[in-house]
Amino acid sequence: MNIPLLLETENVSYIIGNDAIEKSPIKFRQYKRIIVITDENVEKHCLPIFKQKLPSLIIDGVITIISGEENKSIHQLIYIWNELTRLNVGRDDLIINLGGGVLTDIAGMAAATFKRGVQFINFPTTLLGMVDAAIGGKTGIDFARFKNQVGLFINPSCVIIDPIFLDTLEDLHWQSGFAEVVKYGLIMDRELWQKLEGKKYKDVEDWNSVIIKASKDKIDIVRFDALENGIRKNLNFGHTIGHALESFYLKSGNPVTHGMAIAAGMICESWLSSKIFTLECTRLESIVKMIDLNFNRFDFSESDISRIMQLMKQDKKVRKKKQNFSLLRKIGKAVHEVEVEDQLIIESLEFYINRKKCN
Amino acid sequence: MNIPLLLETENVSYIIGNDAIEKSPIKFRQYKRIIVITDENVEKHCLPIFKQKLPSLIIDGVITIISGEENKSIHQLIYIWNELTRLNVGRDDLIINLGGGVLTDIAGMAAATFKRGVQFINFPTTLLGMVDAAIGGKTGIDFARFKNQVGLFINPSCVIIDPIFLDTLEDLHWQSGFAEVVKYGLIMDRELWQKLEGKKYKDVEDWNSVIIKASKDKIDIVRFDALENGIRKNLNFGHTIGHALESFYLKSGNPVTHGMAIAAGMICESWLSSKIFTLECTRLESIVKMIDLNFNRFDFSESDISRIMQLMKQDKKVRKKKQNFSLLRKIGKAVHEVEVEDQLIIESLEFYINRKKCN
Repeated sequence: MNIPLLLETENVSYIIGNDAIEKSPIKFRQYKRIIVITDENVEKHCLPIFKQKLPSLIIDGVITIISGEENKSIHQLIYIWNELTRLNVGRDDLIINLGGGVLTDIAGMAAATFKRGVQFINFPTTLLGMVDAAIGGKTGIDFARFKNQVGLFINPSCVIIDPIFLDTLEDLHWQSGFAEVVKYGLIMDRELWQKLEGKKYKDVEDWNSVIIKASKDKIDIVRFDALENGIRKNLNFGHTIGHALESFYLKSGNPVTHGMAIAAGMICESWLSSKIFTLECTRLESIVKMIDLNFNRFDFSESDISRIMQLMKQDKKVRKKKQNFSLLRKIGKAVHEVEVEDQLIIESLEFYINRKKCN
Repeated sequence: MNIPLLLETENVSYIIGNDAIEKSPIKFRQYKRIIVITDENVEKHCLPIFKQKLPSLIIDGVITIISGEENKSIHQLIYIWNELTRLNVGRDDLIINLGGGVLTDIAGMAAATFKRGVQFINFPTTLLGMVDAAIGGKTGIDFARFKNQVGLFINPSCVIIDPIFLDTLEDLHWQSGFAEVVKYGLIMDRELWQKLEGKKYKDVEDWNSVIIKASKDKIDIVRFDALENGIRKNLNFGHTIGHALESFYLKSGNPVTHGMAIAAGMICESWLSSKIFTLECTRLESIVKMIDLNFNRFDFSESDISRIMQLMKQDKKVRKKKQNFSLLRKIGKAVHEVEVEDQLIIESLEFYINRKKCN
């Protein structure tokens, strides 16, 4: 039997790695009743595994919402509040959030605001959830067509990360999470990068250790900067341009996955890093190669660039001719709040389109 | 010119007393823009005073919701989120909540959850707001017919309490706040009690010092027990029976004010205190006399008592034959989590109806 990693931080307990679920009941003991919040897909594919691993656990209620980012809405938040009311959930009870990033975001907000706060534990079931969304206390919903417009910073009492659920994932979900794993390698974890470099995600052998490394990277960052005043901004590497591309495709009626958008964003922003910092050409090329190995390129053209630039400014609510980026000094070391001129950002998008070499 | 009290606690700054508003701009300086959230009544009666006192303040937007407890709803919360979106409010901006308890509850929740938290300052305009609702970080809305079913504990960065707004209050609003002021005297502040004893609220001369004392009492309690795990429960004196009476009249189609309900609750619960603790008969009678001087009695009859008992159990979600109360050991000293048998609670309601003497 494997021994999962136990990690106690000031506010949150983590159990990470193979057989984490089996170790989790020590964290349930002090509560009166246990309520599970999940979504339709997870209920079908993961809840049976969860129950099988904890056969003696008594679940007092299951609340199931509709899957998908487009359902991270006020309507589903209200649905959860209504269900918690119907089940008469109180502050002595425990809520288990079982699902991917959308689920832990919305259910975390529901739990944290029901009766001014019911304790909850996150059990992420997707790669993205395990290494990113379930960790760090960002909860919320999309509102008025803005992502995460409404929400709060609130920590779960525990996060239990068991790679067993990865077997249930479809390709697109793998990809989304993998973009973030690669990102940790690039911004802060050279060792992780070296483990992954040159591999397709399907060829990674030891997911248990990759997940332990990547989730610990995220935990380290949010411990030092819970409210995103400083170093947590490094996590935005690839996201400034990535989010603009995500919006661009969403608004043109062909939504793309977050992972693909971030992958494209990382190519552009690595190029920016090579122009602004000392990131070497050969390094840039190995990053681009690694991303191309795992993600298809988007097909936007030069004439789309001005629209993409517009969306980027809207997203960040900036009107000036410069934008803040988190960029790479070298592989394994990011710097946040680097101002970049619009012209250079445009060139980074051209670099992406034209598949140019470094210089 | 008066010098208002400045009080800095770990998380919150307070400015309390005459001319507090004039002193408040030092707290606005670090923010980009200022948005006011208020309600229709307050906009009419208090916003002009506020502006007059701060003629050089630039207000970048005013969001006005509908007044009244029945509008402490998800619909108005969504309305505020929409307006904050329309005004493009960001985390560098400041929200000023100008209004009574309903307004600071709902607008506090809106601010705290918009973009995962915009800073806000409470300017209470009612007596209840000044001595109670605006202090202590409880925010929220009514939901699914339960009071404060959804919300969170989150502190404003400042609370600015200026008695000038009291002149705008109607009688019913005076009464609601006065019940809480009397409560502070009874549970923790014998000096305040002595200032008030035997007076109608209209005859109180020095509201400035009464408000400073009462609000400091509340601040002291929430500093020691923000999350209501212990001593903050003392604030529930009068509220266990009071809430049940409030629900009783609400459901029978004749809603009563919170203040009147709490006043009646304090009569019943003072009687319980005399039975369970050493609160003397003469003390009980002076409490009853003081409350009767300021509040009319309700007219429910013995046949309504079983329904009231039912509502009390629903409110607290208790099924057993005892309930927890906060009671008085003596005037100025409360004790929380005192178990009381149903039979004795019934007798306290009979004591109220029959205007019996102490023994």
